[in-house]
This record gives sequence, C-alpha cells and structure tokens, in this order.
Amino acid sequence: MHPLKQLMYPESIAFWGASNNPMKMGTMQLANVLETGFAGDVYPVHPTEATVLGLPAYRSIAEVGGPVDLAQLTLPTDLVPGVLDECGRAGIRRAIVISGGFKEVAGEKGRELEREVLRVARKHGIRFLGPNCVGVFNSIVSLNSTTIPRPPAGGRIAFASQSGAYTAMMNPYLWSQGIRTCQTISVGNEADIDLVDCLDFLAEEPEVNAVGLYIETVRRPREFIEAARETVKSKPVVAVYVGGGEAGSRSSLSHTGALTGPEVLYEGLLRQAGVMIADDLDRMMDMLHALSLAPLPAGGRMAVVSNSGGPGTSLANQAEKAGLAVPLFSDALQERLKAETGRLAYVGNPIDLTFEVDLSLFERLIEIVFQSGEVDGAMLYGIFGWPDFIVNLEKRFPALEQFRAEWEKGYLEFLGRLAAIPEAHGKPLIVMSFSRAEGPSMDPLIRKGVPVYPSANRCARAMSSLVRYRETRDQHPM
Amino acid sequence: MHPLKQLMYPESIAFWGASNNPMKMGTMQLANVLETGFAGDVYPVHPTEATVLGLPAYRSIAEVGGPVDLAQLTLPTDLVPGVLDECGRAGIRRAIVISGGFKEVAGEKGRELEREVLRVARKHGIRFLGPNCVGVFNSIVSLNSTTIPRPPAGGRIAFASQSGAYTAMMNPYLWSQGIRTCQTISVGNEADIDLVDCLDFLAEEPEVNAVGLYIETVRRPREFIEAARETVKSKPVVAVYVGGGEAGSRSSLSHTGALTGPEVLYEGLLRQAGVMIADDLDRMMDMLHALSLAPLPAGGRMAVVSNSGGPGTSLANQAEKAGLAVPLFSDALQERLKAETGRLAYVGNPIDLTFEVDLSLFERLIEIVFQSGEVDGAMLYGIFGWPDFIVNLEKRFPALEQFRAEWEKGYLEFLGRLAAIPEAHGKPLIVMSFSRAEGPSMDPLIRKGVPVYPSANRCARAMSSLVRYRETRDQHPM
Repeated sequence: MHPLKQLMYPESIAFWGASNNPMKMGTMQLANVLETGFAGDVYPVHPTEATVLGLPAYRSIAEVGGPVDLAQLTLPTDLVPGVLDECGRAGIRRAIVISGGFKEVAGEKGRELEREVLRVARKHGIRFLGPNCVGVFNSIVSLNSTTIPRPPAGGRIAFASQSGAYTAMMNPYLWSQGIRTCQTISVGNEADIDLVDCLDFLAEEPEVNAVGLYIETVRRPREFIEAARETVKSKPVVAVYVGGGEAGSRSSLSHTGALTGPEVLYEGLLRQAGVMIADDLDRMMDMLHALSLAPLPAGGRMAVVSNSGGPGTSLANQAEKAGLAVPLFSDALQERLKAETGRLAYVGNPIDLTFEVDLSLFERLIEIVFQSGEVDGAMLYGIFGWPDFIVNLEKRFPALEQFRAEWEKGYLEFLGRLAAIPEAHGKPLIVMSFSRAEGPSMDPLIRKGVPVYPSANRCARAMSSLVRYRETRDQHPM
Repeated sequence: MHPLKQLMYPESIAFWGASNNPMKMGTMQLANVLETGFAGDVYPVHPTEATVLGLPAYRSIAEVGGPVDLAQLTLPTDLVPGVLDECGRAGIRRAIVISGGFKEVAGEKGRELEREVLRVARKHGIRFLGPNCVGVFNSIVSLNSTTIPRPPAGGRIAFASQSGAYTAMMNPYLWSQGIRTCQTISVGNEADIDLVDCLDFLAEEPEVNAVGLYIETVRRPREFIEAARETVKSKPVVAVYVGGGEAGSRSSLSHTGALTGPEVLYEGLLRQAGVMIADDLDRMMDMLHALSLAPLPAGGRMAVVSNSGGPGTSLANQAEKAGLAVPLFSDALQERLKAETGRLAYVGNPIDLTFEVDLSLFERLIEIVFQSGEVDGAMLYGIFGWPDFIVNLEKRFPALEQFRAEWEKGYLEFLGRLAAIPEAHGKPLIVMSFSRAEGPSMDPLIRKGVPVYPSANRCARAMSSLVRYRETRDQHPM
C-alpha cells in the first residue's frame, strides 16, 4: 500500500498542539477536523488539559492504548524529534509535521534538526509529510487537517504543493470560481514524502481526474519524470514552477530550503515528463477545472454560440489566439441552424443569437453543431439565471414570485439537459458567464460537469488545455 | 458643452418601450432607472397605458409639455425613425437608441433604416448613442438605464464599449473583484456618437481616473489617435481589440457592422495613440482597477512582503516576468528590517514573515522599505480578516464573539493606516489575497484605494501597467 494511502485515509488521528486556546494553529486544525465531518477516531494529546475541544485529552500517546494511524504535530520545533520518537514507539507509522523552523530557516541548526526528525522517522519506519507544511484535505473521507475551514464536498482535482498557503488559504478564491479540489497535500520541506510520492499516489486514486503541482524545486528529477509520465497516461498533470527568476529563487531558498534552477531547465524537465505548464496558480486551477470535468476533444475545431456580439466575438478571437480554430460552418450546417434561429441570428460561426433568451435554442444548436461533425467542442455565452436580471422588478410585480419558481424549475431542467450533451457526444462544452460561479445561475451547471469562466480568455485557454492534454495522452499511451 | 455631457447628466428622460410587462427590456431599464435613485424627471411614453411602473404615462412626447433632456428608445426597429422625429419636434436633442435590427443585420434594409435614423437626427440636431446599444450608467447622478441592476456607488473607472454586454452584463463579475466603474457608455453601431466622442468627453470628466475601451473597429482613426493622445496626458486609456482574427472579424461584421483590420494594424494605431492594450476584458479591468486607484511609481523596483513562502515567491517570480525588478535590499535596509521582524523572517526581498499575524508589522515594514528609496512600489500578501480563519471555532468558543468585535475594529483601523501609506509616499501598494474582494476582509481596503487581486500574476500585471502608464505619460506631457 502506498504510504500516502494510510496518511490520506486514516481511521484514527492523534493531534499534538491542539488545546482550548482558539488562537493556536493546532486548535484551528482540530476544530476543522471535527467540523468537516471526519468519521474516524481523534485523540488530542496535551500535557495538562483533561479535554480538548470537548474530546478526552491524553497526556501522551502511550495513554491512548490502541493503534493510531496518523499523528499530526503542530508543536514548537525543538519538541518535534522527541514526540515523533514517542509516536514510533507507540506504533504510529504515518505523520504530518506542521511545525516550521527547520531547513527553511537559514543556519545549520535548522538543517540538523530536520535531519534528526528524518533519523527518528527512519528508525521507526514512519513516513511523513513536512516539516513546515499545513496539513491535508481529503473530501472522500471528509478530512480537513488544515487551519482553513472548508466544506467537505469535493470535486475531481488533486493538488500537491510545496506551498502550504496555496493548498489551504486559496480556498475562498477557488469556491468563488466554482472550482473544487477533492485532495490537497502540502508537502512542506519534503524531508521524506515529496511530490514524486504524491504523483505515484494520485495516479492510482480513482476519484482524482486531474493533478496540480506547485513546484519550487524537484528534488528527484529522474523519478519525477518517471512518475509523471506514468500519471499522464490516465490523468493530466499541470504544474506551476516559480523558482526561475532571481528574486523567486532567493525566496524559494528561504521558504522550503529548495535549490532552484533556471526556468528553461524546468520547462524542459516538465515537458519531458508530459506535464502541462501553467503561468500561475489561478491559471493552473482554471486548466484543472476543465480537465477534471470535460470530455477531451478529438481536435481543436470549436463552435462559438452566444446571444451577445461582444462575448461571442471575444470567444472567437481568444480561441484563435489560443491555437484553436473557429471554422466557418458549411452551407448545409448553416441552413440547418438558420431553420432553428430565424431572422436576426448570424450562424456562420460564431453563432450570434442577439439577445435570445429561449434557452432550449442553445441546447438545440449545440446538439446540431456537435452532430454535424464540423467541430470538436463548443464555447457558449448567454445563459442567465433569474436573479441577474429581475431583482428591481420583483418589488413592483409580486406575481413574478410565482412565475419565478416555475421558471427556475425549467432553468434547472435545461441545465441538466445542456450538461448531458458533452458526455453524449464526447465533445467538451465550456460556458462563459459573468454570473457568479457559486451562485444559483451557474453552480448547478458546474456541479453537473460543465466548466464556467467569466472571460473569453479563460474559456479559450481552458479549452486549449483539453486539446493539449489529448495530444499529450496520445504520446503517452496506456 | 460636449454632447455626451447632457446625455450622461440629464435632468429629465423620456422612455419608449417601458410598459407594465416585466419581461420587456424597456420595463427592466425603467425599473433600474427608478431603483438606482436617479433624481431627475422620468416620463414613460406609452400608446395605451395610463401609468407605467407607477408613473403617469404619456401618449406621446408632445403631451409631456415641458423640455426633456434625453430620450431612450427601446422600440421595434421600424418605429425608431418616426419616434425620433417626434422627439426632435418636441425639442429633445439627445437620445439613446437601444433598438437593434439596423446595420448589424446583414441586408440593405437594415443599413437604409440606420441612415434614415441618422437623417432624422441631423435634421433636428439630435446627438445619439446606438442604435443597437444597451444604455448608460453614470454613478455620479445615480443613472442606470441598462437592463442590469447595479448599485449606484461607483469607482473611478469609465468604460466605453462597442459591446453592450460588456458594459452591463459584466457587472456581477466586476463586483466580485471589487472593481467599480463610475460611467459606462454603450455606443452600439456608432451611427452618430462614437468612441472618439467618448474619449473627448471622458478626458474632461473629473471623477474619471482611467478609461477602458472595447473596440471591434475604429471608424475615425486620425481623430481617435488625436483624442486618445489628449486623454492620456491626464488619465490612462486601456483598450481591448477583438477584430483581429478570422472568426472574430466575421463576428464583428455581424455584430456592429464593423469592418475590422489585422491585429498588427490596430496594435500600431493604439500604441501611436498612447493607449495601453489588454488581451481581454478581465485583464483590462484589472489594469484599470490599479490605474484608477494607485499612485504611479517612479520606476519598476518592487518590494514583496508576505507571511507565506508560496505567494511571496510567486509575487517575486511574476514581478520579474512582468518586467519589474525585485532588487536585493542593501545590508543597511536588511538590518533595519531584521530589527523589526525577528528571528524567523527572511528580509532580503521578498520579505517572508512565515505565518506572521501581527498586522502592524506589515505597516511598519512597508513604511521602512518606502522610506529607504530602494523601491518604487510594493506588493503584499498576508492580510486576512477574521471570518476566513475562525468560523469553525466560534461555535465552540462563544467568548470569541466579543473578541471579534474588538479585533475587527483594530483590523479596520489597520487597513486605514495601510491604505494611507501609498499616497503619503507616492508609491503604489498592491495586495494579493484569496479573501473575497467584496467581503469584509478586503472590501474596506479597496474602498480606501488599495487594489487587491487573487493571484500573483494579476498583481504583477497590474503593477506593471502602472509603470507603463507612467512611461506613456512622460512621452505625452500636458
């Protein structure tokens, strides 16, 4: 069994550093474990408290008695080796060392302390994350051991990161985009478990459709390439590398003790490994969002459908900039489309419906262009939920309230039918909308598997990443 | 007086197309005018209704009797020339023609109808926006004549656009980013008033700090260059041009009847005009956000301050990619910083405070680096409001509730002091945060004039646009 399996799916966890002081990081972490709905056993270890957050507390791990799968240590640096040794003697074989103050701090003392932690772990056969990390999230078992609250519901994205902030603090941003991770792993200083281990583990996780990596350094390049190449046979890997520049390199060294290399070297390594490169975390998450939800297109020919000229033109423009084609439809296809749309619409591709609000028309048009065989995917602008338009009218027209309930039922049914089209045809659909991804207009669509972005640029880049992963996978067959 | 002045600051408006049917576009527009708090007189003109949305309705504009500043026409295409003629005979000299079905629709009939509208307008000396536009927003007089509700409170950004959707539908996205426009002008087919007129007008608007343009075509290139050059002497202009590609060009022609040109031609024109180019609308709004709020830096040397390695490293990396410098601080400056930060921090630049939560430290460090003269601006990650961390603890620690009120008071005071630093030193500060821009952690900071973005890339690009506008302005002195 992969060492991360027991670490990410523990049946019991012991916590060091949690207390009844709500301002302590360990307390926040334990509170999140309890609130997220983790169903396993939880043992706070504390030298003086009888209970911690309402749970019985233990003076030492020896007092717990039974077997414990995982230890999370949020302790002053100097205490870590001793406590880890106690863990080993109590039979614990997996740990997360949150504590900082090791290799990432300049000076020999930190490096020596980190070597000491590793020696203790090796002695007992303990595999661990950290030190200097922020914990893990695994929505599949409702485990959140970070300081940041989050709902247990997860998506299909896994994210392993040499930055803790990006695995935990980034959540409010991701929620606002409708982007959902199911597993996040903060590897910290990688004294033991590193990104290579994460790739090996995540490649085999059936709920994970796409893997993101935040990289300041790759400590085992050969093994990294091997692990990534194996992973991309079944799921895409997207990485951000930030150690390239001069200041970034200085910063990395102080952050995780990582020795960085020039950007071009890492780009070569990542390309060789079949890993797609993103320029920054938001871009990476955009790519993973589409890659984790949408079917892969057979090629780069795209239909653009909108009910508004500006966004339609922008989608076409951005698609072409992103290396996609927006081919002029054949006369036969244009005639079929014209029969559906009537007088005002332009149907050459982009299709411009000019203020159309008959939702079923979008559905029929996308069906028709997908059936035609003239495109490999579609981008759509023009779906709006009720609240975006009508808020100032409801006060004046109380009858709208009743109509609204009916309308919303129809809208949700429409979203369901629309979301079924990509899977049925094996062609991706990406939606552009300024409505909030987390709101009632777009969230149901995203949950049904259609990625939504608020700009043409982000839609086109996401679509392009699907085409590129399809090409990568063709080069790395199973 | 500029023709847009009376159009954007009317004291009275007559509406055609508003009725008591809430599903009509004209009704939505009138409801928004009333709800946004417009203080002028509003006259619905309707052939049969006695009242519209509770206001007395008029059979014709002649019935109104008194002078009216502005007419907004949301009518079937064929009715527009006749009603505009009535407007002219009633003394109205400004109009917004929402109706579509003119030049943007293929065929000679649409083009001829548009020429007819123009002839009628010229006959009476009427200056008008449209046809095929969505109305205007002017927060200064709480006027919103579009179909999309929005709060009257505005920022310092003006946006003139050949796409209506981008001026109105984009609002929910902009709000989620904390980005506020004070004036938006949808020019539609530009039969009369065009982007050149908008530039001339906006250059003189004292509340407008930065101007955005969405361009599918420039109908008067020589006048455009002249107007833009004059504008950029006092405020930055950022444009998106989307007509460059093959499909985008097809789409533009169908959208606003615009003949497009190759991207390189437009890039040349925009550069010659001193206009900054953005790749897409979201990027343009990011740039305008910073340009409308922050002081301009004297150069491109940046300090990066964070309490978290990943975001700090990313900010440094993205700054360098965006053409900014993140110089290593002098020994003297590092010593001053070290005296403030203590043991764990790295102070070489980026400054990494590793999980520091003493907010006043951020304030002191930015003061120190600004005073040093070693940088021209700063980027900061690490400010968090209360709700992001503590939500799962409040249930267990009721005493937190009281502490919270105090903490939040202190936090707001801190934001006030932090936001005063850029102006005091004439150096921009840009904040990276995953907390929602519209939420209690970040919104007060943005309202005090500090731009906030949720990625290092967006922070660095925004900062870079400040440096570039400074250079542009130096080339186009007043």
